[in-house]
Amino acid sequence: MATWNNLDTLASYEKLTGMKDRVNIVEAMSGENGADRVAKYNVPMVAGLNFNYAAKEVDDTILNTLSELADEHQLVEKFEELYNGAVINTGEGRMVLHHLARRQLGNPVLDNGVDKRDFYVSQQKKAAEFAEKVHAGEITNAAGEKFTTVVQIGIGGSDLGPRALYMALENWAKANDTFKMEAKFISNVDPDDAAAVLNSIDVSRSLFIVVSKSGTTLETLTNEAFVKDALKKAGLDSSKHMLAATSETSPLAQGDDYLESFFMDNYIGGRYSSSSVVGGVVLSLAFGGDIYGRILEGAADADELCKNKDLTKNPAMLDALIGVYERNVQGYPNTAVLPYSQALIRFPAHLQQCDMESNGKTVNRDGKPVNYATGPVIFGEPGTNGQHSFYQLLHQGTDIVPLQFVGFKKSQLATDVVIEGSTSQQKLCANVAAQIIAFACGKDDENPNKKFEGGRPSSIIIGDQLTPESLGAILAHFENKIMFQGFIWNVNSFDQEGVQLGKVLATKVLAHETDGALKAFSDLLDI
Amino acid sequence: MATWNNLDTLASYEKLTGMKDRVNIVEAMSGENGADRVAKYNVPMVAGLNFNYAAKEVDDTILNTLSELADEHQLVEKFEELYNGAVINTGEGRMVLHHLARRQLGNPVLDNGVDKRDFYVSQQKKAAEFAEKVHAGEITNAAGEKFTTVVQIGIGGSDLGPRALYMALENWAKANDTFKMEAKFISNVDPDDAAAVLNSIDVSRSLFIVVSKSGTTLETLTNEAFVKDALKKAGLDSSKHMLAATSETSPLAQGDDYLESFFMDNYIGGRYSSSSVVGGVVLSLAFGGDIYGRILEGAADADELCKNKDLTKNPAMLDALIGVYERNVQGYPNTAVLPYSQALIRFPAHLQQCDMESNGKTVNRDGKPVNYATGPVIFGEPGTNGQHSFYQLLHQGTDIVPLQFVGFKKSQLATDVVIEGSTSQQKLCANVAAQIIAFACGKDDENPNKKFEGGRPSSIIIGDQLTPESLGAILAHFENKIMFQGFIWNVNSFDQEGVQLGKVLATKVLAHETDGALKAFSDLLDI
Repeated sequence: MATWNNLDTLASYEKLTGMKDRVNIVEAMSGENGADRVAKYNVPMVAGLNFNYAAKEVDDTILNTLSELADEHQLVEKFEELYNGAVINTGEGRMVLHHLARRQLGNPVLDNGVDKRDFYVSQQKKAAEFAEKVHAGEITNAAGEKFTTVVQIGIGGSDLGPRALYMALENWAKANDTFKMEAKFISNVDPDDAAAVLNSIDVSRSLFIVVSKSGTTLETLTNEAFVKDALKKAGLDSSKHMLAATSETSPLAQGDDYLESFFMDNYIGGRYSSSSVVGGVVLSLAFGGDIYGRILEGAADADELCKNKDLTKNPAMLDALIGVYERNVQGYPNTAVLPYSQALIRFPAHLQQCDMESNGKTVNRDGKPVNYATGPVIFGEPGTNGQHSFYQLLHQGTDIVPLQFVGFKKSQLATDVVIEGSTSQQKLCANVAAQIIAFACGKDDENPNKKFEGGRPSSIIIGDQLTPESLGAILAHFENKIMFQGFIWNVNSFDQEGVQLGKVLATKVLAHETDGALKAFSDLLDI
Repeated sequence: MATWNNLDTLASYEKLTGMKDRVNIVEAMSGENGADRVAKYNVPMVAGLNFNYAAKEVDDTILNTLSELADEHQLVEKFEELYNGAVINTGEGRMVLHHLARRQLGNPVLDNGVDKRDFYVSQQKKAAEFAEKVHAGEITNAAGEKFTTVVQIGIGGSDLGPRALYMALENWAKANDTFKMEAKFISNVDPDDAAAVLNSIDVSRSLFIVVSKSGTTLETLTNEAFVKDALKKAGLDSSKHMLAATSETSPLAQGDDYLESFFMDNYIGGRYSSSSVVGGVVLSLAFGGDIYGRILEGAADADELCKNKDLTKNPAMLDALIGVYERNVQGYPNTAVLPYSQALIRFPAHLQQCDMESNGKTVNRDGKPVNYATGPVIFGEPGTNGQHSFYQLLHQGTDIVPLQFVGFKKSQLATDVVIEGSTSQQKLCANVAAQIIAFACGKDDENPNKKFEGGRPSSIIIGDQLTPESLGAILAHFENKIMFQGFIWNVNSFDQEGVQLGKVLATKVLAHETDGALKAFSDLLDI
């Protein structure tokens, strides 16, 4: 059994706090020393990916101390406990099993006599087989026409991850003849969201997936009613168009309102549920079950790397530890995620949820307040777009923001033009390489307004191409980074009590049971 | 003439720094005192909007000191100099005239004998008349068919603002019978961006606007070539499909490659160019010139408020000063922008550019380093979506993030359903009201994991509905807030030298003129 302690009780952390501002990356990354670092500070991942941290503010001494910290804190042992079915989600008394939905990494995990791996695989098969029948025209609308569109109705984790993955592979699937159906997403309780999506599709040829683990999420039930209303007005039987992705005990799982139901359990949290039927049904319908399976395989291969105690063979743990050095020793409050890939346009929004909802905590896993900073603010947009936007502050602002780049050698659609001697893809890659060095090394200038201090740390994940496997591996890398950081900060990364109060107060507003400032704001908003 | 000094030279700022943690908003917002604050700390804006700052960490004493600071720093006088044509963009030696494109606020502004107001109005008319001819079928493709789609090719300010405004009004225009043409946007040099947009449209019935002030932006010229290639392959004459929005002296303004050219000048920066032809052409084509004119009117009405020396009648200046109190006295590094409106989904990305690129500076307007924090990191997503995502950290994380809410009483499409006694729009509004109080007041609990400290400051802009006028007013409010903050920090908010180094290095990479770490990264990326 691993021992769970706060970060500030560790001898290795004490040692690490003495290493503030140890590495000057302007110097470290200049000249041939810089080239040596690029070669040395590089960890192969899976699916053709590499994690390069040459431009981070680390050296061998810091890395050795981070390695000591990993050992002292038993990070790999904690991961082992997790995948073997320990109750890691202490607040809610639950196991944490999104890895198991991808592959069996350790012992069988049983719950009330059910082998959980079997459960996840059976639901994946059910989704794949259902999707195949839809694609083959064996399941059709009442008029016998093929379904052409699938609409996911869900919010938070039921929306952001699956949407980011769909957008990441939409063009790849089109280029590789595996694109089956267009997917759309309804999330916001703002009625204009559902209305606009419904206006943009042929409802008679659409399937709708209602996604809610509890079956009680207000936004999702409201949007379900919104869609049912539209189906009814179109003279359609909603039970022939609607699917449910929910837990076996939820209200949605009862009755015959749905054409088919797919099941999840309490051991995969919303923000990790791209690996459950929350991601599985919509992505199998959009691209086919085999493509969805390849995403899970890429993720599982990345998960396997997390078993390595050797920091240089465990990129997620290494990334996590460097992030903690930046957050707790260097004192940087933010991290920017900057994928040089238009397909990853919504991936930063997914990571924003995954990271900030997991580790934005002030109490440890035993419910005691911690005395150090935990999860940072995460934000980002794709490059090169961001270069023409907020990069100004990243280069010349008064605060330092650590950067996480992602880049690929090849585009997805392989349609390109040569302008001024280079393709667009080459220009894209040239820009990300240039940015890393510009941020790290800066540039002196007589005019202080044109001077770049440099010293702005970054890492990059470099891939061959964004494919189902590399996408799954990137998804898992960040999930596992967040998990390891949760272990390091000794917080429970798998609950989200901080979202409850707003729900309670909103219910009071709708029941007109408020006074004071809440009533005053409600009046201003005409509720 | 106003005197331009650094913030830390002001007596009022010295006084303000002594007011750290003066207001406990948990107490201030509880009970009837909270309701009083909601009534009292409310400033009417224009177009039916109100700026409410009851839940900010201010009281009358702080507000009086902020008012002293505004006077001592001559903020309104500085704005007056700006709209009367002073060289406010010191780094580039240029006037700053985006306000003038909306309305003449002061004296005539002449440049080489040209009245700049006349110039902006003439270009707006040209765009409106051109759009009308397209809508009427007087300007068609070679086959005599009407154009159905307009594609903007631009990056940064040529993309984010116009795209955010288009998305903000797309549904409103459809509901109000003023929707004329679908707009699409190509921005990223990633070839998959242009290829995917081209795959989604009928190029034979599309107009393309190439937007680049200098006519030398690499991404935009590359994407222009990409589009011309596609037109040629489709057997079409690109000069009958392409428009230019550029400066009169740029390479794009020469020759006969374009069906029509629209002109901008050097006095409206990219991130402020929704008010120049950069926004004017695409939005006039999408919605009609009269709708675009209504956006400008709403913005101009908001600009007029900025002439008020009385802080309680100048919401943008008030917002700016509270932001500086939060940034420099309270020490908060970030601000989240949280619109409770799906239509504003890309508005935070636009504000992220506008704010971070304007005020992410370490030197003052005279090129001397400053000794205080300047522009914060800006990020955000629409509510209620964000509530199911990163709000966990905002409620219970270790850092405090000031919040900027936006909400509307009415939806745009007016399609709604009643579930459990309330409409979706009521639920949306109930949630934003509830969040303000949850963040400000928190909630005690025996279980520390379910405890909310509160004390998390926010303000809200409340509107009747998101219309062209209120959208313009919100756009101008934030632009003017940023302008006033630039005055307060004494930085030049209108240049962006921090984006240059990356461009220079990327060019070297493409020419294979690199060594050291830059060459090593280029090799890893197969350039």
